[in-house]
Amino acid sequence: MSEPAKESVERKSLDERNRMSDLERLRHSCSHIMAAAVLRLWPEARLDIGPPTDEGFYYDFDLPSHRFTPEDFPRIEEEMRKIAKENHVFERSVKTRDEALEFFRNQNQRFKLERLSDIPDGEPISFFSSGEFVDLCAGPHVMRTGNVKAFKLLRVAAAYYRGNEKNPQLQRIYGTAFPNKTELEAWLKAQEEARKRDHRKIGQDMQLFVFDSEYVGPGLPLWMPNGAVLIEELERLAKESEFAAGYLRVRTPHLAREKMYLTSGHLPYYAESMYPPMFLVEEKAESNRAMRREEFRRAILDGELTEAKLDVLLDKAQEIRREEEVRTDRYYLKAMNCPHHHRIFAAAPRSYRDLPMRLAEYGTCYRYEQSGELMGLMRVRSMQMNDAHIYCSPEQFAAEFQAVNEMYLKYFQIFGLGKYLMRFSTHDPAKLGQKFVDNAALWKKTEDMVRQVLKESAINYIEVPNEAAFYGPKIDVQVWSVSGREFTIATNQVDFAVPDRFGLVYRDRDNTDKSPLCIHRAPLGTHERFLGFLIEHYAGNFPLWLAPEQVRVLPVTPDQIPYAEDIVKELRNHLVRASLEFSNDKLQGRILRAEEAKTHTMLVVGQKEMQTLSVSVRVHGKGSLGVQSRADVVANLLRDIRERRG
Amino acid sequence: MSEPAKESVERKSLDERNRMSDLERLRHSCSHIMAAAVLRLWPEARLDIGPPTDEGFYYDFDLPSHRFTPEDFPRIEEEMRKIAKENHVFERSVKTRDEALEFFRNQNQRFKLERLSDIPDGEPISFFSSGEFVDLCAGPHVMRTGNVKAFKLLRVAAAYYRGNEKNPQLQRIYGTAFPNKTELEAWLKAQEEARKRDHRKIGQDMQLFVFDSEYVGPGLPLWMPNGAVLIEELERLAKESEFAAGYLRVRTPHLAREKMYLTSGHLPYYAESMYPPMFLVEEKAESNRAMRREEFRRAILDGELTEAKLDVLLDKAQEIRREEEVRTDRYYLKAMNCPHHHRIFAAAPRSYRDLPMRLAEYGTCYRYEQSGELMGLMRVRSMQMNDAHIYCSPEQFAAEFQAVNEMYLKYFQIFGLGKYLMRFSTHDPAKLGQKFVDNAALWKKTEDMVRQVLKESAINYIEVPNEAAFYGPKIDVQVWSVSGREFTIATNQVDFAVPDRFGLVYRDRDNTDKSPLCIHRAPLGTHERFLGFLIEHYAGNFPLWLAPEQVRVLPVTPDQIPYAEDIVKELRNHLVRASLEFSNDKLQGRILRAEEAKTHTMLVVGQKEMQTLSVSVRVHGKGSLGVQSRADVVANLLRDIRERRG
Repeated sequence: MSEPAKESVERKSLDERNRMSDLERLRHSCSHIMAAAVLRLWPEARLDIGPPTDEGFYYDFDLPSHRFTPEDFPRIEEEMRKIAKENHVFERSVKTRDEALEFFRNQNQRFKLERLSDIPDGEPISFFSSGEFVDLCAGPHVMRTGNVKAFKLLRVAAAYYRGNEKNPQLQRIYGTAFPNKTELEAWLKAQEEARKRDHRKIGQDMQLFVFDSEYVGPGLPLWMPNGAVLIEELERLAKESEFAAGYLRVRTPHLAREKMYLTSGHLPYYAESMYPPMFLVEEKAESNRAMRREEFRRAILDGELTEAKLDVLLDKAQEIRREEEVRTDRYYLKAMNCPHHHRIFAAAPRSYRDLPMRLAEYGTCYRYEQSGELMGLMRVRSMQMNDAHIYCSPEQFAAEFQAVNEMYLKYFQIFGLGKYLMRFSTHDPAKLGQKFVDNAALWKKTEDMVRQVLKESAINYIEVPNEAAFYGPKIDVQVWSVSGREFTIATNQVDFAVPDRFGLVYRDRDNTDKSPLCIHRAPLGTHERFLGFLIEHYAGNFPLWLAPEQVRVLPVTPDQIPYAEDIVKELRNHLVRASLEFSNDKLQGRILRAEEAKTHTMLVVGQKEMQTLSVSVRVHGKGSLGVQSRADVVANLLRDIRERRG
Repeated sequence: MSEPAKESVERKSLDERNRMSDLERLRHSCSHIMAAAVLRLWPEARLDIGPPTDEGFYYDFDLPSHRFTPEDFPRIEEEMRKIAKENHVFERSVKTRDEALEFFRNQNQRFKLERLSDIPDGEPISFFSSGEFVDLCAGPHVMRTGNVKAFKLLRVAAAYYRGNEKNPQLQRIYGTAFPNKTELEAWLKAQEEARKRDHRKIGQDMQLFVFDSEYVGPGLPLWMPNGAVLIEELERLAKESEFAAGYLRVRTPHLAREKMYLTSGHLPYYAESMYPPMFLVEEKAESNRAMRREEFRRAILDGELTEAKLDVLLDKAQEIRREEEVRTDRYYLKAMNCPHHHRIFAAAPRSYRDLPMRLAEYGTCYRYEQSGELMGLMRVRSMQMNDAHIYCSPEQFAAEFQAVNEMYLKYFQIFGLGKYLMRFSTHDPAKLGQKFVDNAALWKKTEDMVRQVLKESAINYIEVPNEAAFYGPKIDVQVWSVSGREFTIATNQVDFAVPDRFGLVYRDRDNTDKSPLCIHRAPLGTHERFLGFLIEHYAGNFPLWLAPEQVRVLPVTPDQIPYAEDIVKELRNHLVRASLEFSNDKLQGRILRAEEAKTHTMLVVGQKEMQTLSVSVRVHGKGSLGVQSRADVVANLLRDIRERRG
């Protein structure tokens, strides 16, 4: 079970601003320069604030007479360059509250006036000026406007004053700045690359998935054929790896009764993250009905009809109606697979001979994320999880845990993820019984084992004290895509407590019943997030084994169609996703289309190739690999797919 | 989408009884003989009725002083044999109502007295006597008790008088009778075989699946590792077949918004068969609140507090509470996959070049069957469907339909289902616009095409007029297991109407938008029902490719363990479900255990086998196949699995 990292582009607190980095200082100054430029062009603009952000800076303006568009950027940037060239000094001054109030009243800066009142009495009211531009600002800034040499405006967005939708809407202009043009260009290029790699864009271009908020619901992707191929391939990979590692597959329903989640402890604490229950109403309970109605009647007749009494009556009436429907049951969509797996473990008497028992499932879970939190595949409401639970004895734990880590490493290799970090979260002995399950010996023993496994396998990890889960230590796995994007794949957790809650036991050699340990693990995380990551990692240019269309055979003229068909048939008999394209379009046009579709391998067959039983091979993004024998090409394709090369 | 056939063992109506078969007549007479025997042994017994059934007959008794158990059967049967030997004639007589009333009053037969009143005035009140036993009975009967030569009592069950649980509970004794002992023995043997093949029993013995009504819910099977193997194998078969047939796989969530099912037409008509909705409550609507509360207050103050007014108040109060929670949405678990697939079809502009588009999914659907209807895997609430929807033009229809039929036939062959029947349900032109979509031309054209396809492919079918679905003709597919059990696998439906409801169109060659036809098909039906059928069909002795445990390697002594391990490793590398068993138990004991576990192939390796790189092969249920070279055995196993032989 993994929780996506929230990307925050939030305004820094004052304290944080005091510790501003050089880059942030530069960007903060650039936001002043932008505001000054806007005021020169639109003197009626009212200012709010302009902090630095992770990607640059912004400034919020109130300007009813003009709606900013990117078309305004060249003019504003031109003016900014002038201000930089004028090389004003950033000068700090302190005003009394009265002076400050008067200053902004004269300028009719209503937001600034309100912001003033945020500053507690006794704190200095600090201003920074640069040329004619003066702003309420705690700083710090660069020395002069001329220090700001490389900047660019990025986009306009609407923003509510103080982020509250009941407040007036302001116009926010985003920009960025860097110490020099080279760094700015590099960043812009990386941004452009990131935009091209955006999984939502590629997902649409390649028809991988689609959201249908109107009919299906927000955050619930429909996987179209090309995307379903990716899922199927990931599943095949996981199933093969897990078969080799001795896992057993199970299948469980997507819902369970309330009792399941009361037992697991997810209810009531986790209820907000679950879809609401389905009430199965069986029959009216006639018994208490008359009695309760009589109580209600008396309550109405008793005393004055105050507002408070009306509240009581409404509640009472609703209670009566509710009790009149005896709710026999509540069912919940599952938000996690563990409880179902625990029940399978519990479904038969287990002995030490059955352990370790590794139950694996591609179970789809449903979590009710708030609409505002939803983001492409990265934050969704339906999650197909590469999930498994390993029930083992304490003696088996170290080997099992190591095997799980090795599976992670194997996957990193397959996906070309060179950079990873495992964060090993441990408990704090001072918080046993509060933040952590009260079993000091088990914590120590398990953590020691985990630490030793991590050290011995030379895994890249850091230890983070006091961040374990309530019921055991955990490992969060972070990876970085080729384009440098950080991503938390999954969490690998040890669970001391839950097997107990479900009364899971195995009969040990000594003929006593013992609680197994449980390892929760999901190396590929959820299909949704992992594919979101992979789409960006590969920029949609998937390796052969993953590519939605693996091979497209292109006959040069109709004469080669039978030969091409034969190649396609041979490949498809081996479950290769191969197709044939012939049309009246010229070959070059058809190659271009295949490249645009990101088809992995194109096999061009002309008269010569047909006669020599060969094909001309072209690989997406790599160009022509020349003419090779058909048999070799087919054999190589099958091998590369089988071995998941490239 | 297939609806299971209900097996009814219901009491025949009087009209039907008049057309009783010879067998039913015999069984009916036998029920009289049983009742006579019971009365001889327990004279205080009160009688209700004793009709023939599909499997034999029963008689209902009221006998508070004794609780029948199977231990009583030998005594009762002994008495029945006496009565048969006495060879009484079954004699019919007619009494007046008064005579009949007096007769039963004298005998204190209260149920018979009540049954008397069921007979309308004017109809003859007919009695049958055989020796001292006289019963209210319309007949017919065999000539003499001596004609009843072969019978057996089967079981006791509780039964409410007239099937109503508010009536007194009676004791029902079931029995059966046949014209001769040979037929009786054959039937009893078949029954025993059916009991052994019962998928619920085998499911438990082999740990295939388990129901967990307490935590998960009734009708929601959890598939344990051995059962999940069966599912995985069926899926692989379907995916391979569908890949070869040009299907595209998709994945869709297990729920959708209300709008989806209002559009499809499943709501409100199908609502009772769906799980109840999940209400997503967003926020309180403050606006109408005060106004409505004021109305409620006035309603309380207005007039007398009668019971009727109390009702109004309760309703009003509940309404207010309901409206205070603005329900932003309702989500339903999907009961069918079609709407999701339609939305995927609609998710991009489609042209004639995209057709036929065959969207396939193993989608789990949820239907809320009544608890009383649930039966093992045969009637469940969660269904993993081998579903697909083929969108095609009218010109493509015949070829697509034929390909679907061929897929059915291919599956019959794989599963050794020699006997099948396709029921082709057509429309009635007189009911166009009422029972059937009003498009005479399309009905005629499509049905003609279907009929022609069926005829030309020499498929075994019958045509059933007036039983088509509302929106198109359909084919129900029935198969028979080796043990003769009939089973409806699935329905193959043509759909004229639904694509229209979802506004599905494709741009045709002539540049106009047209509605595609849609074929719904699910040759393997749902995993749950199909596996329930297969378990009984194979009696758990699955063919190699399906067997949960395919190969078990048994070293004779510890010396052969490394050799055995090497064989297991080789097989598992090829994804064969192979394991090794060594223990201190003797070889014979271990072979017996493997046979009991229904392991398909046992490979015994002793010192000689190890030295000659061979194995001694034993196949479950077939015994030893002798010593063969290891390489041959491995190659044969892999080939048999790949080709799904046996």
